[in-house]
Amino acid sequence: MTDTALVLDSAAQDLLFREARTANTFTDEPVTDEQIQAIYELVKYAPTAFNQQALRVVLVRSAEARERLVAHMADGNKAKTLAAPLVAVLAADNEFHRELPAQFPAFPQAKDVFFSERAAREGSARLNGAIQVGYFVIGVRAAGLAAGPMTGFDAEGINKEFFSDGEHSVLAVVNIGKPGADAWYPRGPRLAYDEVVTTV
Amino acid sequence: MTDTALVLDSAAQDLLFREARTANTFTDEPVTDEQIQAIYELVKYAPTAFNQQALRVVLVRSAEARERLVAHMADGNKAKTLAAPLVAVLAADNEFHRELPAQFPAFPQAKDVFFSERAAREGSARLNGAIQVGYFVIGVRAAGLAAGPMTGFDAEGINKEFFSDGEHSVLAVVNIGKPGADAWYPRGPRLAYDEVVTTV
Repeated sequence: MTDTALVLDSAAQDLLFREARTANTFTDEPVTDEQIQAIYELVKYAPTAFNQQALRVVLVRSAEARERLVAHMADGNKAKTLAAPLVAVLAADNEFHRELPAQFPAFPQAKDVFFSERAAREGSARLNGAIQVGYFVIGVRAAGLAAGPMTGFDAEGINKEFFSDGEHSVLAVVNIGKPGADAWYPRGPRLAYDEVVTTV
Repeated sequence: MTDTALVLDSAAQDLLFREARTANTFTDEPVTDEQIQAIYELVKYAPTAFNQQALRVVLVRSAEARERLVAHMADGNKAKTLAAPLVAVLAADNEFHRELPAQFPAFPQAKDVFFSERAAREGSARLNGAIQVGYFVIGVRAAGLAAGPMTGFDAEGINKEFFSDGEHSVLAVVNIGKPGADAWYPRGPRLAYDEVVTTV
């Protein structure tokens, strides 16, 4: 089904949204650094408040790091996190404000006016970082790969294990690869338009 | 520039990410309910934890409602919020767990196991709702429209003004329309790949 109210072509609609699914199994085909870089170079342009770019991505490639990560995943996520060709830890850098004068030259004072307090920085990094997680998932799909985003893990454990500075907050862990055998559960229902959208 | 490591075609890459920009002015061309519905019917398929769908969209169409919204916007956002063809308030429904047994039939107990406490619900609704904001922005662009997402507002004021049940948290306000004259500021810089992505 294509919707003519959209400009995006039908194949792209399918690739990014309609046929893309959260994979639970993957083939052995590796995910390359070139693919991840292409994803980043695309999704980096999507908008955030004050052009802040708090999202950080840790690619877990070594067997040793994979074991360290799996130890902090919820039981139901351990097997697939161990089996995915590539796993990315997506986190917010709560010290993003240091970069703000360079990233938002129109109002370099934003760093001090809005983000001098830790709580304000954390809230903004978490909100905008999560919006960037959404962009990243779409980017993985744009590379023809399946993303398996997960939030079932010990966040404090991952923060300590992978970010020694104490200034990062994990948002999601994403399994990335080509879908394998029986990769999909049945697609869950979605809310109807009228349940989500109202007009005033 | 196109990247061959991506499967998504070049025109779609431009439409969604590379040429799309946050518009600050708009033409008078209306944004129809059909366009918003097409956007929703596309982005509703993007993934969230437990298939939760906390995102709610309030289309602010009446002049009276527009004035009520503008009163809660930061000064720098008032003029463009008043001028946009359509403004959408995007919020998280913190009572999303009520729908969870129907939306995630594989584990209907999730409602009580994970979301019996208000703080857990709010955290999950805020994280996954923000990820859905990211999908929504991409969806607006898929309809050939410019999105102007804003977070500069009195959140408590908007929550009280537009959600009488006290169970919703505004995440972003998005101006939507066709870009007008001088719609763009110069695009801000983006972090380099190596500043965002590391490998372990």
